[in-house]
Amino acid sequence: MGKERVAIIGSGNWGSAIAKLAGNNVKKHSDAFDDSRVPMWVFEEDYEGRKLTEIINTDHENKKYLPDVKFSENIVAVPDLLEAVKGATALVFVMPHQFLHKCLDQLEGKVEKNAKAISLIKGVGVEGSDIHVFADVIQDRLGISTSALSGANIANEVAIDRFSETTVGYRTEEEGQMWQKLFQTPHFKVQLIDDVAGVSLCGALKNIVAVAAGFIDGLEYGNNSKAAIMRIGLLEMKHFCQEFFKDVKEESFLQESAGVADVITSCLGGRNRKCAEAFVRQKKPFDELERDMLNGQKLQGIHTAKDVHIFLKARDRLGAYPLFDKVYNISWEGLPVEKLTEGL
Amino acid sequence: MGKERVAIIGSGNWGSAIAKLAGNNVKKHSDAFDDSRVPMWVFEEDYEGRKLTEIINTDHENKKYLPDVKFSENIVAVPDLLEAVKGATALVFVMPHQFLHKCLDQLEGKVEKNAKAISLIKGVGVEGSDIHVFADVIQDRLGISTSALSGANIANEVAIDRFSETTVGYRTEEEGQMWQKLFQTPHFKVQLIDDVAGVSLCGALKNIVAVAAGFIDGLEYGNNSKAAIMRIGLLEMKHFCQEFFKDVKEESFLQESAGVADVITSCLGGRNRKCAEAFVRQKKPFDELERDMLNGQKLQGIHTAKDVHIFLKARDRLGAYPLFDKVYNISWEGLPVEKLTEGL
Repeated sequence: MGKERVAIIGSGNWGSAIAKLAGNNVKKHSDAFDDSRVPMWVFEEDYEGRKLTEIINTDHENKKYLPDVKFSENIVAVPDLLEAVKGATALVFVMPHQFLHKCLDQLEGKVEKNAKAISLIKGVGVEGSDIHVFADVIQDRLGISTSALSGANIANEVAIDRFSETTVGYRTEEEGQMWQKLFQTPHFKVQLIDDVAGVSLCGALKNIVAVAAGFIDGLEYGNNSKAAIMRIGLLEMKHFCQEFFKDVKEESFLQESAGVADVITSCLGGRNRKCAEAFVRQKKPFDELERDMLNGQKLQGIHTAKDVHIFLKARDRLGAYPLFDKVYNISWEGLPVEKLTEGL
Repeated sequence: MGKERVAIIGSGNWGSAIAKLAGNNVKKHSDAFDDSRVPMWVFEEDYEGRKLTEIINTDHENKKYLPDVKFSENIVAVPDLLEAVKGATALVFVMPHQFLHKCLDQLEGKVEKNAKAISLIKGVGVEGSDIHVFADVIQDRLGISTSALSGANIANEVAIDRFSETTVGYRTEEEGQMWQKLFQTPHFKVQLIDDVAGVSLCGALKNIVAVAAGFIDGLEYGNNSKAAIMRIGLLEMKHFCQEFFKDVKEESFLQESAGVADVITSCLGGRNRKCAEAFVRQKKPFDELERDMLNGQKLQGIHTAKDVHIFLKARDRLGAYPLFDKVYNISWEGLPVEKLTEGL
């Protein structure tokens, strides 16, 4: 068995935080990993008059997406995707989901046969009555075993070594242990569970719950209501995944960082909660709030709520998930927000 | 089967909120309950120059402990305990736990043989290596079947009809349904579970977790750390109860309002979280903070942490519950608060 050669595919806020951990850990575990070089694919752009790859490779810092955090020198920014993954046996996918398919078009047939991958991509793919998690998409398209990582992980807090936990849903125990070795530090605890789908779905569905929590904050209903909404949301997440995916484990939702803890983090802070609160207080539609508060980026929670609504309608299961349904109807169909808790 | 005759034993903030719901519900369900009169035992005291019982019976409001909330007129304040419970078949115990034994001394042998009770008392009784929940104490001393109610229930929010949930741990399903009928409203959802001990213990142990969450707030570690501590705390609560009580259900902790939702509420707001944050920021010992912030009242979380520590020591199980242990050692033994997350 040779050493694993790691490549990071993505270099945003979360990708950079993870690259920082991985760069240090391959050195710490140089028996298991090639510690000389960890390529990080960077979508090339200019920042303050310099190329982003040049900034990263000279200053060892992603000044645009994770300023003031230093990478170890083995993190090498590479603007060409195929060059970045060349020879790599451990591929870390960490990018906005809308870029995934283009990447896979390029990568198909080009990765090492014995490679393994892990998806840190947030979200879920829905097309009509089809639903799929991105770890499965990567695995199917590239023909390599693909795990998933998700948890209560605000990137900036992880990057500065605040105590945090995360969950890896693995394909095989051996792969799980390899990913744990790559990411775990004394301040970033990695739990393992045999549930790729559950771990992946938590990271998408919790955003719907965070929108509901933001509505409660905007309505000023208080902490009893907010806790009730979080509890109900967590159970709807669990039931949804149990209904539509085989073999998900209820521990992923109820006991793991990916489930209960990420719901908590997302309902305490985060953009979904914040924009939903503003929706109630400012009485502006979400497209206006996306422009004002997110520089035109999409608010994940309301779009996931819409995808889930379309999916449930196609499966004739509308009504089985009342909280998801309320978030959809308030966000997209003009239902008064005061109706949120009615009939839950 | 005659109608149930309800008596409320206690009249503080939570007792008054519950009395408001019960007073209305016995009228709504007058087929099941005697709706003419719901006695509420009040520890007599003076408030603004009048007797508290007289205020309640004249103004239909507990101006001292739950101002601005009106009772229905069938709520009758009674200063004599035996008179309050005379003829009652449904006894609601809702008082600070330190008064329970004195009440039971008076009530022993004096309650209706066919009566049922429910305990809304927070806390757990620990004496050396013995541990017991108050529902069991009431049941043993009075010889009547005693259920328990606990949940994410800030009294003032329940009293003004903010959407809230709670959990009743019942002895028999029939009794569970009776208590549900007595308390449930469109804004206050009562779930039932066959687990008196689990529901009771949640209400005590969550205060230890809330202290830990307050430490994290004081340290300004952020939302990842806070969510991690809440997750770890919830699992320690569950493991502790599974180890020392027969037949507790893990759903009580992971899925019910009494468990996960009450942990959330207590870690978002509440006096335990608040005083623990002040402990870190102001660097004052807890006895000084109890004087300054709680008018000399005891802070439940740190005292429960001490009771649990003594109990675990007596059972030779110190070390099995690292978060509980850290809260004890930081609160009582001078361990630096920065050590909180180490080794969790």
